[in-house]
Amino acid sequence: MSYYIGVDIGGTNLKTGVVDAKGNIISEASVPTGADRPQDVVLQDIVGAVKTSIASSGVDPKEIKAVGIGSPGAIDTANGIVIRNYNLGWKDFHIGEKMSEALGIPAKLENDADAAALGEVVAGSAKGAKSALIITLGTGVGSGFVINEKIFPGCEFGHMVIAYGGRECTCGRKGCFEAYSSATGLINMTKEAIERNPDGILANVAKVEGSVSGRTVFDASDKGDPEAAKVIDEYLEYLACGLANLINGLQPEVVSIGGGIAKQGEMLLAPLRVKVEREVFKGIKLPKIVSCTLGYKAGLIGAAMAVRDF
Amino acid sequence: MSYYIGVDIGGTNLKTGVVDAKGNIISEASVPTGADRPQDVVLQDIVGAVKTSIASSGVDPKEIKAVGIGSPGAIDTANGIVIRNYNLGWKDFHIGEKMSEALGIPAKLENDADAAALGEVVAGSAKGAKSALIITLGTGVGSGFVINEKIFPGCEFGHMVIAYGGRECTCGRKGCFEAYSSATGLINMTKEAIERNPDGILANVAKVEGSVSGRTVFDASDKGDPEAAKVIDEYLEYLACGLANLINGLQPEVVSIGGGIAKQGEMLLAPLRVKVEREVFKGIKLPKIVSCTLGYKAGLIGAAMAVRDF
Repeated sequence: MSYYIGVDIGGTNLKTGVVDAKGNIISEASVPTGADRPQDVVLQDIVGAVKTSIASSGVDPKEIKAVGIGSPGAIDTANGIVIRNYNLGWKDFHIGEKMSEALGIPAKLENDADAAALGEVVAGSAKGAKSALIITLGTGVGSGFVINEKIFPGCEFGHMVIAYGGRECTCGRKGCFEAYSSATGLINMTKEAIERNPDGILANVAKVEGSVSGRTVFDASDKGDPEAAKVIDEYLEYLACGLANLINGLQPEVVSIGGGIAKQGEMLLAPLRVKVEREVFKGIKLPKIVSCTLGYKAGLIGAAMAVRDF
Repeated sequence: MSYYIGVDIGGTNLKTGVVDAKGNIISEASVPTGADRPQDVVLQDIVGAVKTSIASSGVDPKEIKAVGIGSPGAIDTANGIVIRNYNLGWKDFHIGEKMSEALGIPAKLENDADAAALGEVVAGSAKGAKSALIITLGTGVGSGFVINEKIFPGCEFGHMVIAYGGRECTCGRKGCFEAYSSATGLINMTKEAIERNPDGILANVAKVEGSVSGRTVFDASDKGDPEAAKVIDEYLEYLACGLANLINGLQPEVVSIGGGIAKQGEMLLAPLRVKVEREVFKGIKLPKIVSCTLGYKAGLIGAAMAVRDF
């Protein structure tokens, strides 16, 4: 049997694991990522965690063929370099080469969103799909596209303008998909609705919850607030607009929605499907629209699956 | 040597030719497409034109390995069927199978824009590019994406909404890339400027030319009309917006611009590059932005090149 190491670098924790060729996790280990530490110290921690996960897996180390690393930030996948990661204070971190040297097996670096997308295709919500688009609705909007179980590199569709001259985005453009469809976008829309009616149900729910989160508007809608329902409807209109753009262009078999907002499940997906169907170009086959199922494990599994050909 | 037949189905003429493996046309033949005729009659015409081009090429028919067909309309590439082409009155035309039977070689059907994109990559403006996006600014906006000299199927980015709730598009959505960046979009913007100022230079140029075309606004701008320059600038802003979306998402090495509007050459491309650079996500390598060079031959060459693996 062949096994692969997956490493998922998160802002708080680094997760590693031994994964089989079908995407099953055999064993896992986790260490704090620890921002702003010397890169060689970070490397030692990752290697240590990998060795722990190998030891606890019971797998013969000779059967471990390669290590895949999923990292956020600006990535040079061809050369295995994290060019820049502001959150972690990393710069020109030749993590691919160094991991390969330390473990004595080939290493490959991927963007973390791409790795997570591959994980969902091999072992999660889009299992068996010839092509799948994985959209993560978190602080930003992440997009990953996978064809024939291969990552389509560098799919940065969060910064696709859908509303020319619209909401300012962190990237400097106006009207990006991310500015509307991220959790941040929804929170902004919720705050604006509260400002318009500071005594309504929505405002009250926010007060009780202590702050406005991506969940607030759904909680208010559950209480029968028509204003909250209107915010959700507007949010879904923009989300459907961006998704339809990508369905028209990429024609995926499956669209998987992940991230915090996706926790709303069918409450989100059922009306979203109706709106997407209305927007997609006639003659294009509608994809299945589902929730991601692997959660944090998607990145770990996907990073490992990205080196299956090694 | 191996040779391939390319067939490019246009609204007016069908062009066929014998093409070598490097994308050089050895011989060509053309017949009127003739809309609304029985499909078997059309087929006979295509087969006749192919045979004419083979005869005039001097190539040994045994060296001709396959036929590639580029067609507009709704296409089932997997099964070689033109599902629907309203302009030609075609419906469920099993052109792939029938061409293969008639010529005794394998046949493959492609979307005509995709075929033209492949032509530009193999033998035209994007020659040697690992990945290229070909955008055609005509009646609509066509998009084709080619990676490693393979067509990325079904890239319908003309119907990507860039201005939520904006100009109505023929597809039923509002604010599509095509509604702004096609020749039709530019003509609409020109007409609106003329309505705003019916006695200006732009209105006068349109009067002299007899109608408003995609060229009118450029002709008026050449005469120093600031109003025309403003329309061009606005047109380029939208075009840059859509292109930046696609560069962010697909990260092509080369972007080739074709179609009627592209005839403006550097007058269009020089300011476009500046606007695109401003819009592209930081950290993404800027592609070369060039004009298509093969003209009508792109579709013929590309259709032939799509069957090189046969």
